Amino acid sequence: MTHLTELETPAALIDVQRMQHNIARMQQRLDDLGVSFRPHVKTSKCRSVVQAQLAAGARGITVSTLKEAEQFFAAGIEDILYAVCIVPGKLAQVLALRRRGCDLKIITDSVEGAEAIVRFGREHGQALEVWIEVDVDGHRSGVVPDADALLTIGRVLHGGGMRLGGVMAHAGSSYDLDDLEALRRIAEQERAGTVLAADRLRQAGLPCPVVSVGSTPTALSAQSLSGVTEVRAGVYVFFDLVMHNIGVCSLQDLSLSVLTTVIGHQPEKGWAIVDAGWMAMSRDRGTQKQKQDFGYGQVCDETGTPIEGYVMDGANQEHGIVCCRVAADPDIARRFPVGMRLRILPNHACATGAQHPAYQAMLPDGQVQTWPRFYGW
Amino acid sequence: MTHLTELETPAALIDVQRMQHNIARMQQRLDDLGVSFRPHVKTSKCRSVVQAQLAAGARGITVSTLKEAEQFFAAGIEDILYAVCIVPGKLAQVLALRRRGCDLKIITDSVEGAEAIVRFGREHGQALEVWIEVDVDGHRSGVVPDADALLTIGRVLHGGGMRLGGVMAHAGSSYDLDDLEALRRIAEQERAGTVLAADRLRQAGLPCPVVSVGSTPTALSAQSLSGVTEVRAGVYVFFDLVMHNIGVCSLQDLSLSVLTTVIGHQPEKGWAIVDAGWMAMSRDRGTQKQKQDFGYGQVCDETGTPIEGYVMDGANQEHGIVCCRVAADPDIARRFPVGMRLRILPNHACATGAQHPAYQAMLPDGQVQTWPRFYGW
Repeated sequence: MTHLTELETPAALIDVQRMQHNIARMQQRLDDLGVSFRPHVKTSKCRSVVQAQLAAGARGITVSTLKEAEQFFAAGIEDILYAVCIVPGKLAQVLALRRRGCDLKIITDSVEGAEAIVRFGREHGQALEVWIEVDVDGHRSGVVPDADALLTIGRVLHGGGMRLGGVMAHAGSSYDLDDLEALRRIAEQERAGTVLAADRLRQAGLPCPVVSVGSTPTALSAQSLSGVTEVRAGVYVFFDLVMHNIGVCSLQDLSLSVLTTVIGHQPEKGWAIVDAGWMAMSRDRGTQKQKQDFGYGQVCDETGTPIEGYVMDGANQEHGIVCCRVAADPDIARRFPVGMRLRILPNHACATGAQHPAYQAMLPDGQVQTWPRFYGW
Repeated sequence: MTHLTELETPAALIDVQRMQHNIARMQQRLDDLGVSFRPHVKTSKCRSVVQAQLAAGARGITVSTLKEAEQFFAAGIEDILYAVCIVPGKLAQVLALRRRGCDLKIITDSVEGAEAIVRFGREHGQALEVWIEVDVDGHRSGVVPDADALLTIGRVLHGGGMRLGGVMAHAGSSYDLDDLEALRRIAEQERAGTVLAADRLRQAGLPCPVVSVGSTPTALSAQSLSGVTEVRAGVYVFFDLVMHNIGVCSLQDLSLSVLTTVIGHQPEKGWAIVDAGWMAMSRDRGTQKQKQDFGYGQVCDETGTPIEGYVMDGANQEHGIVCCRVAADPDIARRFPVGMRLRILPNHACATGAQHPAYQAMLPDGQVQTWPRFYGW
């Protein structure tokens, strides 16, 4: 254990108390709505974070890569949904995981995808569990709930001896909103579309035990989840400035920040230079098109209190430029002397975390534990 | 050794022949201009790449983090410039490296920085080698060449018993240009400002053996480097779409790409979905403000030939959206069937490389070697 004040910079700092608050808030909400919760671990890629989510009541996890599946299965988690449409080239790795005892579920959104899965499953004598991805908002992938293809995919999988496990959707367009009524509408659209898809499968005599929806904004806005069996969400565990702008958290909820040190100034320009650049923050400029643009992040003092109006306005690989957004601060060098430590709240926690080999997890007494995280594929 | 066609996706692919061509081009140019070359290894963070640069004639390396210094010193490289202004909190690590035999040079751009170095150096009986960072274009850090502070910094360091090793500048504003004449002007501005700073130090009776300048655009545009002793550049080894737009390379020079697989379609929208999202490409949108916006990257076929007009237009964490920039392609699913592999040329090679634990280095016969790279601080 080290203390916050001894950490080298830049470092990815987790405020554990805030993180636990975020975990409890989401779990309580979904318990109240009567659905189970399958957190998306692509945000943290960290065993300690995921263990805290499971300890609070989450059932199973969602992954975005097979490496996440491998790593978390090695950590003892068996119930895993790989929520990116499978391609034939990745099926051998899926099979190997299942044969080792991992209850790994895969998804598809096309007839040709379903056919390839059936061919592979039969060839290897394995009834793979497959969920069908449903498109509820034209955001990215999925088959629309009222398409003929939905039933064709279901019949190919079920008739081909695979285990048709359910339907899943992700209303990614919720990230473009910043108004509670609109968030409630997209949450209802996500729910209704996914339930419609499940109903159509069932009416066609096909099994559909799981109805899975989710994104952090919709999970925190839904008023009813009737017909849904589980919710998925990821970034809520840390939150970030994008989520703050959407309106589903306050600045005080953000549990991930980047600790940095002031290394110089350009006083005439009102700039302080810090040792966290885009390599430490990521290149994510997610607030650029939102109602409040935070540049590369909101500046806080070392204790985590935001310093209003000060942002990281520019970033090179290992240099960040901190300044006052409103007008150049002539006192910048006195306000932020060389050697002073600051915390920067990030635009997008998933992207910022990925730049760091480990998190520094800070307990309320300022003691810090190193929590490793992984990356790659 | 595996073959290109056996690689799992997404993967960061280096075309070794192109890389060697880029290395030879830069080395030849700087040999012809009569200066030595100190490549910036922050681009690759990879021993095999840096060994190729040194084998071609580079002398010493430039690093952006002390982790890079540690890693490359462990690989046998002693002559290292840490090109980010030092803060007192990092001096202990610098001292430890020097005591182990690393010829590590540090930089500063302020009187208070110089004073802190002198205090630390004297306390530990170590004559640290320090270069002064010069600001030639108002881009970021550095002291302007005609400032009184330049001489004060020099006197503090030299008088305090440190080794004043030289001056260095980086004309980062060259990244904003796309016209040969303007590039030549900024290269001359970088040269002249840095030489002026060196002359002023020498006229004041202070030593200034090294005059170091550089960025990939200026290194490839300078017509004279009179008075300069060495050049630094990093991204030239891979090049990228930003450099292509600046005009210092052609698309055929880009030696880094991301290998990806098509995983689905939205035919009505003209989208093919691939398994490389922003996690594999990085969030860098460096071409957004340039004359040609490539989205998240230029699409090529598996052999590396660009498919004109097709870019990665959008990206989620593990999903990329590939489409025709001009108009939705109704034949997208036939053109890019599920399972097809593509290469995506990135906006910014330093950012894209950083997302991957290793490069896949492809030789002309299609055989591939894994070259590990590191990250973090």
